[in-house]
Amino acid sequence: MELSTELGLIEEIKKWTHSDLIGDDCAILTFNGPVLASTDSLVENVHFRLSTTSFFDLGYKSAAVNLSDIAAMSGKPRQILISLVLPDYVKKEHLHEFYLGLNDCCSRYDTIIAGGNLTSSTQFSINITVLGQAHEKGVAQRHTAKSGDLIIASGDFGASACGFHLLNSKDESLKTRAKEEFSYCLKRHNKPEPRLRLSWQMIERSKNLSMMDTSDGLADALLQMSKASSVSFEVDLASIPIHEQTKNAASALDLNPFELAFYGGEDYELLACMSESDWLEIKKSFKEHEDSPLKVIGKVIKNDAGSVKLIQTAQFQWDDCLNMDRIFNHFEKI
Amino acid sequence: MELSTELGLIEEIKKWTHSDLIGDDCAILTFNGPVLASTDSLVENVHFRLSTTSFFDLGYKSAAVNLSDIAAMSGKPRQILISLVLPDYVKKEHLHEFYLGLNDCCSRYDTIIAGGNLTSSTQFSINITVLGQAHEKGVAQRHTAKSGDLIIASGDFGASACGFHLLNSKDESLKTRAKEEFSYCLKRHNKPEPRLRLSWQMIERSKNLSMMDTSDGLADALLQMSKASSVSFEVDLASIPIHEQTKNAASALDLNPFELAFYGGEDYELLACMSESDWLEIKKSFKEHEDSPLKVIGKVIKNDAGSVKLIQTAQFQWDDCLNMDRIFNHFEKI
Repeated sequence: MELSTELGLIEEIKKWTHSDLIGDDCAILTFNGPVLASTDSLVENVHFRLSTTSFFDLGYKSAAVNLSDIAAMSGKPRQILISLVLPDYVKKEHLHEFYLGLNDCCSRYDTIIAGGNLTSSTQFSINITVLGQAHEKGVAQRHTAKSGDLIIASGDFGASACGFHLLNSKDESLKTRAKEEFSYCLKRHNKPEPRLRLSWQMIERSKNLSMMDTSDGLADALLQMSKASSVSFEVDLASIPIHEQTKNAASALDLNPFELAFYGGEDYELLACMSESDWLEIKKSFKEHEDSPLKVIGKVIKNDAGSVKLIQTAQFQWDDCLNMDRIFNHFEKI
Repeated sequence: MELSTELGLIEEIKKWTHSDLIGDDCAILTFNGPVLASTDSLVENVHFRLSTTSFFDLGYKSAAVNLSDIAAMSGKPRQILISLVLPDYVKKEHLHEFYLGLNDCCSRYDTIIAGGNLTSSTQFSINITVLGQAHEKGVAQRHTAKSGDLIIASGDFGASACGFHLLNSKDESLKTRAKEEFSYCLKRHNKPEPRLRLSWQMIERSKNLSMMDTSDGLADALLQMSKASSVSFEVDLASIPIHEQTKNAASALDLNPFELAFYGGEDYELLACMSESDWLEIKKSFKEHEDSPLKVIGKVIKNDAGSVKLIQTAQFQWDDCLNMDRIFNHFEKI
């Protein structure tokens, strides 16, 4: 990008983001106590397609997926730094929409756009680094799960992957149906929400919280956490929360909803391990009649090198799944 | 990138970088006082070519250009986060070389690789966010230059741009000559050094230091700083430091050394404004017989909207320049 174009755009971005931290070689930031830092890239045609998302949603999602890393550790996001590599078909009005979406997500979670970088090239990519403040109650990490803990998941799984498949389907009538019938899945894919408030509610009420987000799929999260904590997990397949729309959309797409839940990724839910007493405290914090987004999906069964077993309970029929081969390739079935 | 490949590579990267901060959703970092943060991208065929750099040097430079942003504000770099978008021709052994170079630069300046991200795609790009600690004496910014201040530059200008032109020359005999005769320019381009220690030496001995780095060229730095401080600069063309090899290489390339110095960029030198008494204190801090890398190149002449005037002194002949048109397009000649 020509320097004069870049400088002009930076002035516009300052206006769009209302940020007074942009301008020097570095942003000057202050924190109380430990700082959480994470970085993530979104690359066109790998992580998103401009044919299936608006620039506003893309901006929103770029912030949300990074804030989710702060939620994973129960932190409070404070600032993001954003580097854009821009091809020439991304025009100033697109960038404006993108920054409006980015700002919308950031401002919902008290996060400021503190700096960034613009480069011209052929492939559109977005890199965000998020900085956060550790919660005063501590930092949730992956390696503290203990034998006897319950395994808790937030929300539901596979919806984002379903949304992805619907948006990229070659079946035009299914795509039209999806806007009406499967809008939940489309929204979960294009405009995910970081689980920040829930993560604070959990750290505030637990003595030992092991946690991460499920950005790379539930299977990855289960395997990573059991490995980091050197424990074994026993997960009840029947308890994996899958939204009604996800089940129906998977059926319309001829896909296995469990495969989507385990391997689809981009759900940005929380996976946590905690003692039964911590779990009771957290449950109590939801008001009566308030739907808790948290659910027990299994338990930590022993201290060892780390593995995940799937179990079958009475309520669950294996026939519910079309093809569990890929899942059982990675998990042990008992 | 397949998740299993990514996880395998992350394990390797942990070994290569000796970093125990990699692994959770976020790195947990501690700072005393204000934090400095900056982000920068290097994109293949925009910022570097694999035909003209080694992976080791590329890793070194990726760290160095980011650490230079911390030097620009007299800070102490502490951690970097690195996101790589990798095409399939970047193999594991290349990545290993890259991380060795990255680590070499980081460890020279007490900086740790605290986290990152790997993505597969077609275009190779590197994004680094650097976090630093503000110096106990304060933070040098761009907007504090005052009328009466001296304008000081470190090192010399245009060498990196000369290196770039030599490395990309179609004249094979010139390329061969360059390795012998112009090795300084090649090194300045492929393996720049951040001016961290010099920036600390300056903040420690000055009462009011306005500073930035010259990553986008001396012209940009002069214009940015005069604008940010709302002052006018008077810069003596004859005093712009240009290395003997840069002058000779520019002549061999049929390029104007001043154009390279002003617009070439990537010199990663420091541009500073300070009072005469601060300048005397800093000069005293260099040992006798020690070559100071700092030089007065002009003065701040008045408080206004910000402009840069170039002046001609007796020692300087306009004939030294082949074509000053582009320079005088942006500056006012008096």
